[in-house]
Amino acid sequence: MDRFAIAIDLGGTQLRAALVDPSGKIHRRTSVATAARAGPDAVIEQITEAAKLISEGLTRAQIAGLGVSSPGPLDTVRGLALSIPTLSGFDTFPLRDALSARVEYPVTLENDGIAAALGEWRAGAGRGHDNLVYVTVSTGIGGGVVADGRLLRGRRGMAGHVGHMAIQRGGALCACGRNGCWEAYASGTAFARRAVERAAEAAGSALGAGGSRIDGHAVFAAAELADPLAMELVAEEADFLGAGITSLLHLYSPDLVILGGGMANGFDLMRDGIAARIEADAMPAFRDVKVTRAELGDNSGLVGAAMLAFSESETRQRL
Amino acid sequence: MDRFAIAIDLGGTQLRAALVDPSGKIHRRTSVATAARAGPDAVIEQITEAAKLISEGLTRAQIAGLGVSSPGPLDTVRGLALSIPTLSGFDTFPLRDALSARVEYPVTLENDGIAAALGEWRAGAGRGHDNLVYVTVSTGIGGGVVADGRLLRGRRGMAGHVGHMAIQRGGALCACGRNGCWEAYASGTAFARRAVERAAEAAGSALGAGGSRIDGHAVFAAAELADPLAMELVAEEADFLGAGITSLLHLYSPDLVILGGGMANGFDLMRDGIAARIEADAMPAFRDVKVTRAELGDNSGLVGAAMLAFSESETRQRL
Repeated sequence: MDRFAIAIDLGGTQLRAALVDPSGKIHRRTSVATAARAGPDAVIEQITEAAKLISEGLTRAQIAGLGVSSPGPLDTVRGLALSIPTLSGFDTFPLRDALSARVEYPVTLENDGIAAALGEWRAGAGRGHDNLVYVTVSTGIGGGVVADGRLLRGRRGMAGHVGHMAIQRGGALCACGRNGCWEAYASGTAFARRAVERAAEAAGSALGAGGSRIDGHAVFAAAELADPLAMELVAEEADFLGAGITSLLHLYSPDLVILGGGMANGFDLMRDGIAARIEADAMPAFRDVKVTRAELGDNSGLVGAAMLAFSESETRQRL
Repeated sequence: MDRFAIAIDLGGTQLRAALVDPSGKIHRRTSVATAARAGPDAVIEQITEAAKLISEGLTRAQIAGLGVSSPGPLDTVRGLALSIPTLSGFDTFPLRDALSARVEYPVTLENDGIAAALGEWRAGAGRGHDNLVYVTVSTGIGGGVVADGRLLRGRRGMAGHVGHMAIQRGGALCACGRNGCWEAYASGTAFARRAVERAAEAAGSALGAGGSRIDGHAVFAAAELADPLAMELVAEEADFLGAGITSLLHLYSPDLVILGGGMANGFDLMRDGIAARIEADAMPAFRDVKVTRAELGDNSGLVGAAMLAFSESETRQRL
């Protein structure tokens, strides 16, 4: 039995690595600022170094493999990064093979939304469910789906790009280039942008008073202190989230929707607003589906990447 | 080896029955106007009679079972019709058990979109694909999804209600009660409504001239004759379809999207418009996915229902 997997969460800002056991427990952890503009070679070097650091003192036999969660779209069948907006040079780049050439472990690659869904399914809020949708809301919106007891992968493993479901035809421009995506309305970026715009118009609000920086965290903090503008912004955000989630209920029919990413920090403030939008908009048979907060916080993707490495290792041992 | 399955396509207008072989070939067929307002007992009686008629002269051993495709939402795990808008009294009604009590064959029940997806997958345009989305566009919009080589069912078997993905927040009222659903913009009903409205304003159009009835068929016919208003309506419809399909690509990552239902009769006129919207809006990795027309026409659901009956029968024989 393998004792540990090395998990890598490759983000546009941070590259995080962890040593994870089969239960999903994290034993060691490290992170470094991603060399996002330096090109694939530099990033491969960073991942290799992080893997080495995190597994120091362990023997090869104790390591099941290296699981990598990466922003997409990735073609996980061929192990390619197709085009990662936040990382220069990752266009049709053979990420899996480039890593396999550098480390002595099997390498597993997964879209970050799917990896995080797996982490929450196996070791977080989704334990015991056969159908769930995980939605991560931070800079953008990503996701991953478990349906009928299996990860939903689709062609090239690219299913679950839930942020790029249009909710407003011809609406706000999304980072992907399309107009009206859910991400363009409900992401942390969109939330903070609305806060900055409205605070400039609302002199009475505590938001941004004294030149303090307005971001999602500041809005949630002000809403907890009952600042009217902040409460209005939070209610609006909950409504955008609930609207998108309602469509996801009809599309995937999950038992449970799990909300992760930085915006999940405001989940308690938004829970009722999300539920109200679902109650108003979902078809009756879908209204009782619960929306809950991710349990693993920042670590859903790391834990999921580790689970993939364990699963890959078991498959190899069976062959 | 079972020779035939009895397939029932229970619609709000027509109740159709067919005798289908394992290759998907239809050997006999019958139909009757659905007693849609007479309540479940009358409909159960109609289905029983149709099954008897269609299997006349065959022995019990020649029949694998009875497969029923029905409008949803159905809970296919428990065999319940949860609430069928077009059929009176089908609210939390035990459709599967009520039928099982009347026929000597095993009864399989499936949401119509999923049944039709299965028909196209096994015997139509989707043969050989592991990932596909079937979309039926007629009075409403329904669908079914094959992902990773399996039918996507989800909780209670209710996945794939693609018509009730909102594409315009707070937009047109849908039959489901929500505002802005894809169905409210791209269904045959919405297409015909726009045609009636615009024809009233456009005196020069051939549409509706001489008091002729304006419906989807009439618009497609006029567009083929290069009537400017009809061409504009068709282009707009193609754009609505392409917009929704683009979101479905991001959500399910199919190899192929199959368009069925009455509106597929205008597929050749809309093909370029659908493709143009996908090309403009889809993320690059999804742009090469083909949209094609259903091959089984009206029979996708019947053939799929038969396939379910065969599959159920095989499972029982293995147990």
